[in-house]
Amino acid sequence: MAKQKATNITWHHAHITREDRGTMKGHQGAVLWFTGLSSSGKSTVATAVEAALFERGCHTYVLDGDNIRHGLNKDLGFSPEDRHENIRRIGEVAHLFADAGVIAMTAFISPYAADRQMVREINAKTGFIEVYCECPLDVCEQRDPKGLYKKARAGEIKNFTGVNDPYEPPLKPEAVLKAAELRPEACVAQLLAYLRQHGILKEA
Amino acid sequence: MAKQKATNITWHHAHITREDRGTMKGHQGAVLWFTGLSSSGKSTVATAVEAALFERGCHTYVLDGDNIRHGLNKDLGFSPEDRHENIRRIGEVAHLFADAGVIAMTAFISPYAADRQMVREINAKTGFIEVYCECPLDVCEQRDPKGLYKKARAGEIKNFTGVNDPYEPPLKPEAVLKAAELRPEACVAQLLAYLRQHGILKEA
Repeated sequence: MAKQKATNITWHHAHITREDRGTMKGHQGAVLWFTGLSSSGKSTVATAVEAALFERGCHTYVLDGDNIRHGLNKDLGFSPEDRHENIRRIGEVAHLFADAGVIAMTAFISPYAADRQMVREINAKTGFIEVYCECPLDVCEQRDPKGLYKKARAGEIKNFTGVNDPYEPPLKPEAVLKAAELRPEACVAQLLAYLRQHGILKEA
Repeated sequence: MAKQKATNITWHHAHITREDRGTMKGHQGAVLWFTGLSSSGKSTVATAVEAALFERGCHTYVLDGDNIRHGLNKDLGFSPEDRHENIRRIGEVAHLFADAGVIAMTAFISPYAADRQMVREINAKTGFIEVYCECPLDVCEQRDPKGLYKKARAGEIKNFTGVNDPYEPPLKPEAVLKAAELRPEACVAQLLAYLRQHGILKEA
């Protein structure tokens, strides 16, 4: 038998806590959970918030279709069960990022209130901020940069939120962005103010 | 119809790149993928490396059974398919952390070479460092802090790696820790030297 020079007992190192990470980064971890119709501006605002936070030296990450649907959740389709599991996994990953001290932003339609409640509970201890990108369907449909509404209206996409699948608006979101009326800079300013007011960012 | 004051076209913000994040954090993102038998010291070394990196102002996160099996992967059991999916998801999450500029460490037995090859490919662009915690089975079995080997020998745990399920040692790991012989400080020093030599950490 190989001689055991080091046992688990001698391996004693302090775990780094959420507080430790917050002190180092100069801000708390949190989850900004954007929700809203397709083309309501979720990714655009999240990216703009990320840029503004980065300028201020904050550590951020945006989870969106690009980095989730092609990777972690590439095994999931669009059945009700898979859409639910898609949101669950995103909620768990956002929680890990917030636990790591990062301000995580998620940009997914997440149309069902029950799913959003689930991710709120997953993130109960790490700062969950539901951000409703409120934008009328007709505005979203007019934007339609990828032609998705057009395809849905033509019957080429089934279960498309707002067309033939419901969107359940949040009843008590932490923030509502008037995404059809406000300039993006105003949305960013609104969310940064929220983060300062709630101690996630230090007061400027 | 609500008047559209801001369209997607006017919302133009630079995406933060991996390089941007590396510049801000003062180090590159990467994945340190620890592999080895149960009780070979994976979590212990990962935690010690995290503490040492934190002292140096590095941004880190450890993925292990505690934060993965109770959250993201709580729907998975221990069938071959589920064990494979478990490792796949951890590889994808580690990739997201590395993409976010964090030095992610994963502490899972990950006994199968094919699964480790899969996560290596997932992380091909974000710095993948396979760390083999080499420790003889009899040493691991003598440590056995949770009594898992004892249960496996008694037939209470099936498919336990090293007892009645194979461990396939890495053939070309980036680092081999002589986890039965070296003091933990030496393992940490070895890995920090690796990170410096490969430009993930700046030279001291």
